[in-house]
Amino acid sequence: MTATATGRDLRALFAPESVAVVGASDDPVKWGNWLARGALRAEHRRAVHLVNRRGGEVLGRPAHRSLADLPQSPELVVLAVPPAAIDAAVDDALAAGARAIVAITAGAADGDAGGPRDAALAARVRAAGAVLLGPNCLGVFDAGSELELAAGDLPRGSIGLVSQSGNLALELGLLAAEAGLGFSRFVSLGNQADLEAGEIVSELATHPATELIAVYVEDFRDGRAFAAAARAAREAGKRVLLMAIEHTAATARAVRSHTGALASDAAAIDAACRAAGIERVRTPQELIDLADGLLRARPLAGRRIAVLADGGGHGGIAAGLAQAAGLELPALSPATVGALRTRLPASAAASNPVDLAGGGEQDIRTFDHAAHALLESGEVDALLLSGYFGGYGEYGEAMARAEASVSEALGATARAAGRPLVVHSMFAHTAAGAALRGAGIPVYRSVERAVAALAGLAAAGEAAPDGVPLLPPAAPPVTAVGYAEARALLAEAGVPFVEAATVTSAEDAVAVAARLGYPVVVKALGALHKSDAGGVMLGVRDEAALRAVVADLRARLAPPALSIERTAPVADGVELLIGARRDARFGPIALAGLGGVYAEALRDVAVGLAPLDVARAERLLRSLRAAPLLHGARGRPPADVAAAARALAALSEVAAAHPEIAEIEVNPLLALPDGAVGLDARIVLA
Amino acid sequence: MTATATGRDLRALFAPESVAVVGASDDPVKWGNWLARGALRAEHRRAVHLVNRRGGEVLGRPAHRSLADLPQSPELVVLAVPPAAIDAAVDDALAAGARAIVAITAGAADGDAGGPRDAALAARVRAAGAVLLGPNCLGVFDAGSELELAAGDLPRGSIGLVSQSGNLALELGLLAAEAGLGFSRFVSLGNQADLEAGEIVSELATHPATELIAVYVEDFRDGRAFAAAARAAREAGKRVLLMAIEHTAATARAVRSHTGALASDAAAIDAACRAAGIERVRTPQELIDLADGLLRARPLAGRRIAVLADGGGHGGIAAGLAQAAGLELPALSPATVGALRTRLPASAAASNPVDLAGGGEQDIRTFDHAAHALLESGEVDALLLSGYFGGYGEYGEAMARAEASVSEALGATARAAGRPLVVHSMFAHTAAGAALRGAGIPVYRSVERAVAALAGLAAAGEAAPDGVPLLPPAAPPVTAVGYAEARALLAEAGVPFVEAATVTSAEDAVAVAARLGYPVVVKALGALHKSDAGGVMLGVRDEAALRAVVADLRARLAPPALSIERTAPVADGVELLIGARRDARFGPIALAGLGGVYAEALRDVAVGLAPLDVARAERLLRSLRAAPLLHGARGRPPADVAAAARALAALSEVAAAHPEIAEIEVNPLLALPDGAVGLDARIVLA
Repeated sequence: MTATATGRDLRALFAPESVAVVGASDDPVKWGNWLARGALRAEHRRAVHLVNRRGGEVLGRPAHRSLADLPQSPELVVLAVPPAAIDAAVDDALAAGARAIVAITAGAADGDAGGPRDAALAARVRAAGAVLLGPNCLGVFDAGSELELAAGDLPRGSIGLVSQSGNLALELGLLAAEAGLGFSRFVSLGNQADLEAGEIVSELATHPATELIAVYVEDFRDGRAFAAAARAAREAGKRVLLMAIEHTAATARAVRSHTGALASDAAAIDAACRAAGIERVRTPQELIDLADGLLRARPLAGRRIAVLADGGGHGGIAAGLAQAAGLELPALSPATVGALRTRLPASAAASNPVDLAGGGEQDIRTFDHAAHALLESGEVDALLLSGYFGGYGEYGEAMARAEASVSEALGATARAAGRPLVVHSMFAHTAAGAALRGAGIPVYRSVERAVAALAGLAAAGEAAPDGVPLLPPAAPPVTAVGYAEARALLAEAGVPFVEAATVTSAEDAVAVAARLGYPVVVKALGALHKSDAGGVMLGVRDEAALRAVVADLRARLAPPALSIERTAPVADGVELLIGARRDARFGPIALAGLGGVYAEALRDVAVGLAPLDVARAERLLRSLRAAPLLHGARGRPPADVAAAARALAALSEVAAAHPEIAEIEVNPLLALPDGAVGLDARIVLA
Repeated sequence: MTATATGRDLRALFAPESVAVVGASDDPVKWGNWLARGALRAEHRRAVHLVNRRGGEVLGRPAHRSLADLPQSPELVVLAVPPAAIDAAVDDALAAGARAIVAITAGAADGDAGGPRDAALAARVRAAGAVLLGPNCLGVFDAGSELELAAGDLPRGSIGLVSQSGNLALELGLLAAEAGLGFSRFVSLGNQADLEAGEIVSELATHPATELIAVYVEDFRDGRAFAAAARAAREAGKRVLLMAIEHTAATARAVRSHTGALASDAAAIDAACRAAGIERVRTPQELIDLADGLLRARPLAGRRIAVLADGGGHGGIAAGLAQAAGLELPALSPATVGALRTRLPASAAASNPVDLAGGGEQDIRTFDHAAHALLESGEVDALLLSGYFGGYGEYGEAMARAEASVSEALGATARAAGRPLVVHSMFAHTAAGAALRGAGIPVYRSVERAVAALAGLAAAGEAAPDGVPLLPPAAPPVTAVGYAEARALLAEAGVPFVEAATVTSAEDAVAVAARLGYPVVVKALGALHKSDAGGVMLGVRDEAALRAVVADLRARLAPPALSIERTAPVADGVELLIGARRDARFGPIALAGLGGVYAEALRDVAVGLAPLDVARAERLLRSLRAAPLLHGARGRPPADVAAAARALAALSEVAAAHPEIAEIEVNPLLALPDGAVGLDARIVLA
């Protein structure tokens, strides 16, 4: 029994007892032709019915004129029909008793993707207790059940592929084959009218032949459900690799706060990936390269690597790239240097990177001796071998045999050490490259691909993901969202603010200022970007100055009210920005960054799925590039990061409980040596 | 006549009338064997003499026992002898009348690289009016003169390759061949005892068959001379691509200022590249990919590109990568959208990226029609075609012919438009890929490589390089470099400082403060990092506070003197760091960044070869990530960048005129709306 998180059984989709192909054709340029041929390849294990409205014969078999003519109910119906015929064809399939329908749009684009036609289709399919893949998809493939209802020649292997693009799936297939990898299943999502990416990922998490899940998605639909499914897959021991299209930041959205501008669509995807433990990749090559590393090697226990090369050039280039990618090349201990020296020629550099300096050419077993000393030292988490290895076989038959034998030894060394060995070889596609792959070692043609894979393995080995937080029940919606209301809502939730009072007269202003103590800050309320409009006056020193400021603000801005505030010790703290934005796919996204004038100028922000607990909020703050400022730079006392984290967590709870809030932020939040205090607040309703 | 910048004639090295190979051998695993065989391949155009101390025959020719036995003076002598025999062999070669010597270390590492042995060798060679390549090099290759005295099978083409690593040269050869490119010359540098990278680059700049110069170097020697040679090559119309090993930042150097830490060894290389117009690459694949773009296409006139794909997935991935690489995807004008619509099927997305949505499959000429509309629109500087194109030929013979014909049309379209067309093809290594290359279009197997090449072409198309500045004559060296002396030296050169006076008594402090006006700043002199040690007191409000501060500083730090300074309006400006460091290879390097506590925390710095003129200094400041802060963020007035630039230029002149200064900085330099003012200064002597 195969059941997904939504409880639906997808066996009829992946391993049906019988299949009907509607639109089956003899014409080799029609999709109904290759679908029919694909289905017939498994005729030995399931009934295959071909349907063509003209009847007659197709591919040497009798063709039925309609699904109604079939001798039995087909478990799976594949539709290769024009978009206009989809509605009727789905109804016919349901009437014929189909449990699963794959709706392929035969070569023409579908003008109604995601519209009411799709919603109605999904409703009818669900009412019948069936499932629908598509419409506008490119099919489905299951290596184990020999179900070949998809385009192209897909290599077989252990990767479960979910894709919204057919050509990208084909490219992934070519690259996987080159790396000696392949697919356990391929699911083309199409419009996701019924089956969505998340449900397929849930299903693959329980599929024994799938060891790793690869996803290309353009439209996440319920992003939180997708993230939760990916998290479950990871808990089931299967990594999820995601390639996603980023919509260009804020251009498509109206944005009215710094948070809105900085918590981009791309940042929301990143937040979901970090919460769910999804490995994000940018391109098909990166996806296959990381999959190669995960399937043949394993995530790194840390970021320390050694580089081994025969020649200083390859070692130096690899070392520089690795460091730029965030990997560390520790200095080796005297014991390890000694162990290397006993195994390497005198001319070799027994440092990190290790340069065999011709030692590999003199005795090719030197590569394994050095790899053994490095991987068993306990001083590195992985080894990168870069350069000529793989090409010594070009010198002749004897060298080729020796190289193959060393390849096997290297594989055994890495397995015994329990630490990855990754190879960049100029000769990755020779027999020696195949020998290395056969020995369980990922091999890359260029050093940048090897280093990127290692960096991906290091990221994959870092602390367990935070998990996808549940959204709290919606609180009573807010309607008035001026500065005072925003402050009040956040303060009630636990965000500390500098002491302030709202006044409407100069007399009240003077009374408040006397209570707070001079100098005070005066803000004109009502304007959205108060500081841009000259509506914030700092350091108002005494009553006379206060009266002048009040008069000036009234004359220039005619504000409905003023806020009189205590002056915060800005020079003693670090100005942060904390905020949240509600993303259409992933829900509320919390954000932290440097505040004040630095927020947008430096774009140094960290994001996470809201609500954040205090520990996650603190990790977010500490992940900023500017985090050293919080730890106390140049003799300043460190800031109270825990207090800032409590404020961020409280703000994120407010955002999570208020779906009507599009953007919410405190900017700046002043992180002081003892506590944190908000100096401004803003809410934008959806 | 071939003459380098140093005036030496290198014809005997690259196109000798006669060659002698010392150490010629019949043993195919010895380097003397392939050197001899390589030399003999051009026996039809030059005399080739083989020398082996055992005499007899080598490769079927009589072998001379020594160079003294030769019937004529050999113009070029190649030495394949052990390191210990180099000295005597060079002397023999000079005695025999050699004009050029290539000293190859036969398989063993050279323990004396760059030491006194090398210097003595070079002196003897120069005294004889000859030139020496190496020792410890791997040979020389010249396609035009059929001189094959280097390892491996190098493809022929128009790239002049200079390398300090043999294996990297071999990898570059493999990658070049795959791209249909090759080498006009290859020079292995070795120890650079006599001939250095810069002199070879100068020579290649005048070599007609060399269209592009590729350099891998580990040791720049005279980095300014190298940069000047590269600048001259670029002025001669030849791009220089550099792959260099970066030494890890400050670990190898003692660093005593922020500038010292931030102006890393890597930053110095970057500064030289920007000054000289050198294109920096990180790996062999990046080098060949950019060379492919430069040789088949050309630098971009701007950063605007269009993306064209058959399928939304490839278009979206390419668009996202391109934007992340700093390229722009402008929205297309209604006219261009209209032109596209008349040529594309109705289902296509005529936006940027353009998605043919199956249109290419229906009519493959659609690719060229769309490319034509985009490249002729004037709205983009280049076109990236990404995805399936190159694979339609798999459908059969007719499609293969059609695809080849469209490849030619695409090449013609790009040439006519005068704008680059770059292709990522899943099928880059098929006949269709070869057809595209034949049509003058660079083709890449992965989209990340295509985008990186485009970004490199865009960088190569940006404003002409600043040029390599000359160093002024050395000024009388400074010896005392306390705070007061540093301020005075810089102030005299034109760096404005906040008003201040040095005092040694509380009475003098009070008198100075009365003149400057309270509040004042008090600094304890003598300590290197004053602010770290608590030796800087800000906002001293009145005489009583001043006396207390003076007493406290004396009690804690026992400073030899105090500086009493006017309080600067810090809140009104942006704190910058300006500085310079003297690099062992590239001389004085100027640096600008955010100042105060932000300098090291954010590592947002820009560097240039000193001295900078004011215009270059201003460009440096405006290139900072934090530059928006200078332009006036959130309603603040813009800072006086010109004044800050004048200060930076003045500081860089001081650094350039004082080779004894290792590090010099003003941190912070406060950039105000009207002027700039230094608040601190530091000099570290070498």
